[in-house]
Amino acid sequence: MEKVKVYIEENKDRFLNELFEVLRIPSISAQTEHHDDMIRCAEHLAAALVKAGADHAEVMPTEGNPVVFAEKIVDPRAKTVLVYGHYDVMPVDPREEWTTEPFEPVVRDGRIWGRGADDDKGQSFMHVKAFEAMCATGTLPCNVKFMLEGEEEIGSQSLYRFCRENRKLLKSDVILVSDTSMISMETPSITCGLRGLTYMQVEVTGPDHDLHSGLFGGAVANPANVLARLVASLVDEQGRVTIPGFYDDVRELSVAERRALNRAPFNLAAYKRSVGVGDVAGETGYTTMERTGIRPSLDVNGIWGGYTDEGTKTIIPARASAKISMRLVPNQDFRKIAKLFEKHFRAIAPRSVKVRVEFLHGGAPYVSPTDLPAYRAAEQAVEATFGRKPLPFYSGGSIPIVSAFEEILGVKSILLGFGLAQDAIHSPNESYGLDQFFRGIETIPCFYRYFSEM
Amino acid sequence: MEKVKVYIEENKDRFLNELFEVLRIPSISAQTEHHDDMIRCAEHLAAALVKAGADHAEVMPTEGNPVVFAEKIVDPRAKTVLVYGHYDVMPVDPREEWTTEPFEPVVRDGRIWGRGADDDKGQSFMHVKAFEAMCATGTLPCNVKFMLEGEEEIGSQSLYRFCRENRKLLKSDVILVSDTSMISMETPSITCGLRGLTYMQVEVTGPDHDLHSGLFGGAVANPANVLARLVASLVDEQGRVTIPGFYDDVRELSVAERRALNRAPFNLAAYKRSVGVGDVAGETGYTTMERTGIRPSLDVNGIWGGYTDEGTKTIIPARASAKISMRLVPNQDFRKIAKLFEKHFRAIAPRSVKVRVEFLHGGAPYVSPTDLPAYRAAEQAVEATFGRKPLPFYSGGSIPIVSAFEEILGVKSILLGFGLAQDAIHSPNESYGLDQFFRGIETIPCFYRYFSEM
Repeated sequence: MEKVKVYIEENKDRFLNELFEVLRIPSISAQTEHHDDMIRCAEHLAAALVKAGADHAEVMPTEGNPVVFAEKIVDPRAKTVLVYGHYDVMPVDPREEWTTEPFEPVVRDGRIWGRGADDDKGQSFMHVKAFEAMCATGTLPCNVKFMLEGEEEIGSQSLYRFCRENRKLLKSDVILVSDTSMISMETPSITCGLRGLTYMQVEVTGPDHDLHSGLFGGAVANPANVLARLVASLVDEQGRVTIPGFYDDVRELSVAERRALNRAPFNLAAYKRSVGVGDVAGETGYTTMERTGIRPSLDVNGIWGGYTDEGTKTIIPARASAKISMRLVPNQDFRKIAKLFEKHFRAIAPRSVKVRVEFLHGGAPYVSPTDLPAYRAAEQAVEATFGRKPLPFYSGGSIPIVSAFEEILGVKSILLGFGLAQDAIHSPNESYGLDQFFRGIETIPCFYRYFSEM
Repeated sequence: MEKVKVYIEENKDRFLNELFEVLRIPSISAQTEHHDDMIRCAEHLAAALVKAGADHAEVMPTEGNPVVFAEKIVDPRAKTVLVYGHYDVMPVDPREEWTTEPFEPVVRDGRIWGRGADDDKGQSFMHVKAFEAMCATGTLPCNVKFMLEGEEEIGSQSLYRFCRENRKLLKSDVILVSDTSMISMETPSITCGLRGLTYMQVEVTGPDHDLHSGLFGGAVANPANVLARLVASLVDEQGRVTIPGFYDDVRELSVAERRALNRAPFNLAAYKRSVGVGDVAGETGYTTMERTGIRPSLDVNGIWGGYTDEGTKTIIPARASAKISMRLVPNQDFRKIAKLFEKHFRAIAPRSVKVRVEFLHGGAPYVSPTDLPAYRAAEQAVEATFGRKPLPFYSGGSIPIVSAFEEILGVKSILLGFGLAQDAIHSPNESYGLDQFFRGIETIPCFYRYFSEM
């Protein structure tokens, strides 16, 4: 491994500059006006993979944003690692809260600042550079395939079909994913569980036009008031979701499992400080780590209706809307939850309004057993570079496509992520530590080595 | 009155074209970028008043938008009518719902379409033209003063001070206001009651930045969910406002008064059709007319927070806000209600969030006794032009400044409005009937005549 370490050390600055080139492309998949940026980003990464040592790399079209596929076959009989990542990023609003330009990356206080610095351009690019280091030093021990998509932040719709149509091309022994976080640099961890997701949008319509709130106030149902009432009723005082049947399939952990889970170091005061809240809140009877790791949740991601501009406007808005997403845990089916949500929301709406309920996207929860050879290889790799055996970690996040990989390709994924809570992914001022970036590049070749030797 | 009628008939087209010139000025007081339009509109009206026959007209500066003042003194011993109106208009959003340009007035289906066509440029301008007709035909029976403000839609803040500082200048026997509606052209009415208003803005803040709803969902209070819960709790299942003390000062009408009020013709099916709702909703135990006429109400005028753009974004927003206004009835004090609201809202907010509560503006309710000579003069004037004795009507709307006139100037106002529910004031596609406009211009001189003879 020494040669690889030296190579990485000697090329640090170039690696960083090359990452910056990727970060400068505003590849926001949720906003159609960025369509050309998606193509540009995909082509840029394909070129980078060839330069890194791939036999060939292609920008493969889909119904949506293209998939970047690349591969290097060292020996048909050797094991094959399929690296998955995504080059699309989240929108940047609220724009005004960024202290630097979201798409003009800078290094400050030992961290890379910019949209995508962690999620997932920074983490995907670690694999490109680790791959280059192994090729350049002749230490690549197995075959490698890259699959980088451009729709992860909007549900990976095109990738499901892409996987079904390219099973042969994607044949591999393990899928390696760096799109998750660790507890801390001092307490490394590997994500062995992910929550699923059901993302809905609702619209409540009342009068067929905005009404004067004086002339009609008190006599006509106000869609914004009604929406507030309906949304509020979805979670009860105990922090439990009230949708009938919502908890039916939830896998309840045993006391032993819960004890093990809570053994991971957790500092409530530090946690509150890191998010800037006076107190945590959630389902009664569960710890904060359990609330995000093994319990489902319901959040309003956005709500809007009526006059939201400067000053006052005395109206009863004609309509009000909300984006509502639910995080799911093992055994919950995101399609079933979507149906239960729609049925319930329609059932509780009063006759004085009309409601529209739309399913935007979803994904299944995922569990990676800690006794998989590939998981153990990852464990050893992290221990080799962090000097500590990583803890198994149940993340609250979702990577819907990961469970689909298992269904469609029949291959398990290893969630070898190097993010940290402080990276503020999906938020203004996203960042990624230089130590996270380079430690990741060092860890990946170790994984290849241990995995190929198993 | 014949001469006046003839004059109006002969000048109809010009009157309309002159009104269009006023409607073309986008004098939206709620939006600061329209500051210059406010000045332009005020100067335009001052010039129009001089052309109509005023001795002089001035654009009088205030801390906010200027007040247009004009007068014509025919005889110092004669009665004096002070005409009040406003030249500012509401914002036009949702812009896309307008079928014609809001500030490019057009006549279609016998109606004038455009922002301000009724509220209140159309109605104020009727007075300018009626005044012109009386001057031109030498039939002006009393002194006239005009006071047109530019902040009615945002609370008339500057006008309160203007009135206090110009008591002498504004000395009059009655204030004539056309900023209200009638039941219908077939059932004319005069507004004898107005609701008061308390307009608040609230902001709920949770984490100090948007959080990833997967990593934190279920463990951190979501400001949008909390806002929904708080707002929903402000009105109970019976449609009653839950703020402690809110109803303490509400004047309960006697059975006889309620019976009289409900004698006005009201067609529920037609009412539902006119606003496009499947059912009405409101405080249990009261009719629709009572709910808007004599009962207070609470409405969300706007609500916003988190991601409201296209597609999906999985965040817990750092904050969510709402504009909430309450309509008040006789004896409720808008300042006291603002205090009760703030106290209650702070009291019900959970420790997991911070709340900001802001008072935006307010005004007192108003009652004009139907036995006032001026009210009777208005009654006779309407009967003369509509062929029917108008009914006294309790409007749900508010004109906060009207009750201030009584406090500050000691003068009662007559609410001689010619609007109709279908005019969609404050909404997209505001309109005003040509018949309303010209019938109003005919009615006003009759009022002057009867009032001066009393």
